[in-house]
Amino acid sequence: MFTNTAAFKRLEAQKPIDLSVELTAERIESMVLKGVGFDLYYATERVSSDILDDLYALADESHALEKMRRMQAGEVLNRIEGCESENRAVLHTAMRDQFSDRQTAAPAVEAAEKAALELKKLERFLEKHEGKFTDLIQIGIGGSDLGPRALCIALQAFWRPGCRVHFISNVDPDDASSVLNAVDLKKTLVVVVSKSGTTLETLTNEEFVRVRIKKMGLDPKEHFVAVTGEKSPMDDPSRYLASFYIWDFVGGRYSATSMVGAISLGFCLGFHGFKEILRGAHAMDLHALTASARVNLPLLSALLGIWNRNFLRLRTVAVIPYSQALLRFPAHLQQLDMESNGKHIDKSGRLCQFSTGPVIWGEPGTNGQHSFYQLIHQGTDVVPVEFMGFKKSQHPYDYEIQNTTSQEKLLSNLFAQSIALAVGQKNDNPNKQFIGNRPSRILMAERLDPFTLGALLAYYEHKVAFQGFIWNINSFDQEGVQLGKMLATKILFHFSAKRTKGKAEPFPLAEAYLKMLDL
Amino acid sequence: MFTNTAAFKRLEAQKPIDLSVELTAERIESMVLKGVGFDLYYATERVSSDILDDLYALADESHALEKMRRMQAGEVLNRIEGCESENRAVLHTAMRDQFSDRQTAAPAVEAAEKAALELKKLERFLEKHEGKFTDLIQIGIGGSDLGPRALCIALQAFWRPGCRVHFISNVDPDDASSVLNAVDLKKTLVVVVSKSGTTLETLTNEEFVRVRIKKMGLDPKEHFVAVTGEKSPMDDPSRYLASFYIWDFVGGRYSATSMVGAISLGFCLGFHGFKEILRGAHAMDLHALTASARVNLPLLSALLGIWNRNFLRLRTVAVIPYSQALLRFPAHLQQLDMESNGKHIDKSGRLCQFSTGPVIWGEPGTNGQHSFYQLIHQGTDVVPVEFMGFKKSQHPYDYEIQNTTSQEKLLSNLFAQSIALAVGQKNDNPNKQFIGNRPSRILMAERLDPFTLGALLAYYEHKVAFQGFIWNINSFDQEGVQLGKMLATKILFHFSAKRTKGKAEPFPLAEAYLKMLDL
Repeated sequence: MFTNTAAFKRLEAQKPIDLSVELTAERIESMVLKGVGFDLYYATERVSSDILDDLYALADESHALEKMRRMQAGEVLNRIEGCESENRAVLHTAMRDQFSDRQTAAPAVEAAEKAALELKKLERFLEKHEGKFTDLIQIGIGGSDLGPRALCIALQAFWRPGCRVHFISNVDPDDASSVLNAVDLKKTLVVVVSKSGTTLETLTNEEFVRVRIKKMGLDPKEHFVAVTGEKSPMDDPSRYLASFYIWDFVGGRYSATSMVGAISLGFCLGFHGFKEILRGAHAMDLHALTASARVNLPLLSALLGIWNRNFLRLRTVAVIPYSQALLRFPAHLQQLDMESNGKHIDKSGRLCQFSTGPVIWGEPGTNGQHSFYQLIHQGTDVVPVEFMGFKKSQHPYDYEIQNTTSQEKLLSNLFAQSIALAVGQKNDNPNKQFIGNRPSRILMAERLDPFTLGALLAYYEHKVAFQGFIWNINSFDQEGVQLGKMLATKILFHFSAKRTKGKAEPFPLAEAYLKMLDL
Repeated sequence: MFTNTAAFKRLEAQKPIDLSVELTAERIESMVLKGVGFDLYYATERVSSDILDDLYALADESHALEKMRRMQAGEVLNRIEGCESENRAVLHTAMRDQFSDRQTAAPAVEAAEKAALELKKLERFLEKHEGKFTDLIQIGIGGSDLGPRALCIALQAFWRPGCRVHFISNVDPDDASSVLNAVDLKKTLVVVVSKSGTTLETLTNEEFVRVRIKKMGLDPKEHFVAVTGEKSPMDDPSRYLASFYIWDFVGGRYSATSMVGAISLGFCLGFHGFKEILRGAHAMDLHALTASARVNLPLLSALLGIWNRNFLRLRTVAVIPYSQALLRFPAHLQQLDMESNGKHIDKSGRLCQFSTGPVIWGEPGTNGQHSFYQLIHQGTDVVPVEFMGFKKSQHPYDYEIQNTTSQEKLLSNLFAQSIALAVGQKNDNPNKQFIGNRPSRILMAERLDPFTLGALLAYYEHKVAFQGFIWNINSFDQEGVQLGKMLATKILFHFSAKRTKGKAEPFPLAEAYLKMLDL
């Protein structure tokens, strides 16, 4: 178990450095890790070289790199030993293993070949229907929504003229209504995404849109595309213009580079734009796989996170992109990280005696500076921050105002925040005092383009996976979402029973709510 | 000090109830507080009637209701005793004190009269320019963005046909570029919001848009409106079609019902729609002011929050609206709560020996269920949840699928989650075990219309204020944002010095970053 490793015990005895005293220009220049076009600046984390040694030893003792190798080779990692559980390979990396330096292990090769077939299908589909649709609505929830949505929004600067993408996710009927108000269904392609073909929210919203399409006298079969498991109830050529496949070795929250994200991203960016995302993700996959521990970007990020979580005992992580385009990226990271590592048992089914995944939250900077940064600087809890920044803007427009461009103002604020959090400020006025010594790191890249975004996505996927490997938990299942789903179904029977004059199984707690609300 | 009260000491000795054992239908039906069209269900919080007694005693000892009375009467509450600080009244309630049961104290009356004048000006302005503009862009950041944006999005179902509202906030040039791509500037009204008239991000973005407007051969004076302090640099009729005023007794994060939100909301909803928001907020103001402690909605919510924060020692609060329209409401609450109560000194300038404001985060349900709920159900940290729900949808469209409507599915999920978190589930398979006993509450209303949204906004404003009153901290300043701003300005000089061949003050830490990035 994680807490029994020698490195864990040594780390418990380590004293974190005091950034308000120890942050120097030399430290900043010496604590940089470069790879795949990124610079990770981590001088503003509370680690010494001794602590880093122990963290790398922890990675070593927990065989983190070996597990990454096994994951990308397609070994069955999604399981809990000794009890009934999922029992699957974890092969989202195969979705982008379409370039050089390919995996050679059979399961990974097979998965990459399946993915290649779907990519080919998609390329032909986009060619065939070129110019036919101006709008695309993706219907999906969770991983079938958050990742693709975050990526599409992040790359809006690269959308092809006249192409727009929309998303419907929530079972709230107002979600579908407001999207339907914004499009001309005659020229709209609807992509429905559900691996099982049975997700309640998604099927409900699909039907919601089908009703509207039929009312307009249109043929749904000419407008609906399915992204689903082969032979699922949705894999039905009589109802869909086309079916694209996904498999149980790609988890929802890791599926943005599968067909789950491919149709919408291919539609708005063009097929080659989507391929660039894959190329970037693949470059990061290879880096995570082949870079040795000391120069492995997502591994270092994972270790710094473990230091903050398990030794500084911090409860949340703020992810703050200094890029408005990444507006919805934190919502994706929330799912990716919290659904993967918000676990209370380890891979042997034992209760964890340590903290696993933290709460992940965030909004873009500079916006956040005028909002929740008050608490980050002067609140009673310490919040470690993962900043993201880019040297150049996406759009070509920028102006000098007071002798600096907007992009320069953005970057000045990013660096200023990291320094301010670390060094703080002494002042006789207690309200102008900043204790400082608050950890953060900065991940920098040149420009947020499709390649870089693909690499950024994979960086976080592998950071999360490495943390799970080190904690020895299963980052690839999600049993914790089942209970609520089951109870919701029971309550739904109370609503349907009223209509069908049937009888629902008694559920006194829920009935109390329904009665009071007169439902 | 908060920790010296008798009630605090009693509460420290209290044992929280075990929801997994004690939640019953009777408990659910007995723990409901009603007011202003809302039902607050709090049976799923870990409180007994004994604990509630002590919490109300805490409110009493800290004179919470008395301080609310003093706030709404316009006494100077925004200050720290014994050191240089802001020194102001806190009168956002005066913005909506435009109906019955008005305040009689002079400062409150004066503020309400000032607000009435601006409302009158706005009504005339909207009449005069009716039909002239199809789009409105609001440029502002922090409180001049998050509140108005959250409210506009929440009420999109009520927008007048042909009217659209957009927001530019981030100094990231891509924010302005992407909004400008979406509008026809010839028919666009631009509302620039900055109380001081000097906010860097806002002035930069204003200039960004002005450059574009001039390039199109349009006259900026016919398109730009200022919302600012009287006599600020922006209060300039030679540059703006109109100026609307705000005052230092309305803090940014409390300003959505002032002219900061009024122009955009009045534009998209019509003046009377905006007045309904004010009417709802005013109804909640009166409730917070006049309802006795035991039946005061925001006070109860504040006390439950303090129980979770200071006695159960929980570090974050998830705010989860089961309403897609409230998509951006959590971002507003993040600012409202974290900037108000993320403080480390009390009103006498002493370091707080207890936890103040928690991290506030959230996304709409049911979306979150397919994302971060894994951690909420089975993670190693407990996250208290504030659910919001509505009996009816906003749009008139809903369909029965499998004998239930989408709205019924939405509500079933809401109730199911609250129950699941509380009672958990025993199972021999450790991965299917839910420990339960995780606190939540549900705030229900009939339908998210302008009145209800105004009341909801004020409910949270007063919850935050009550918590600040009880902790005896100043919820109305934001000294914690100053240090980062100051350092950013220093770094900016390094950029401008390159252009002007000037010399910037040395700043080795920042220079290390700039050098490495070759900036």
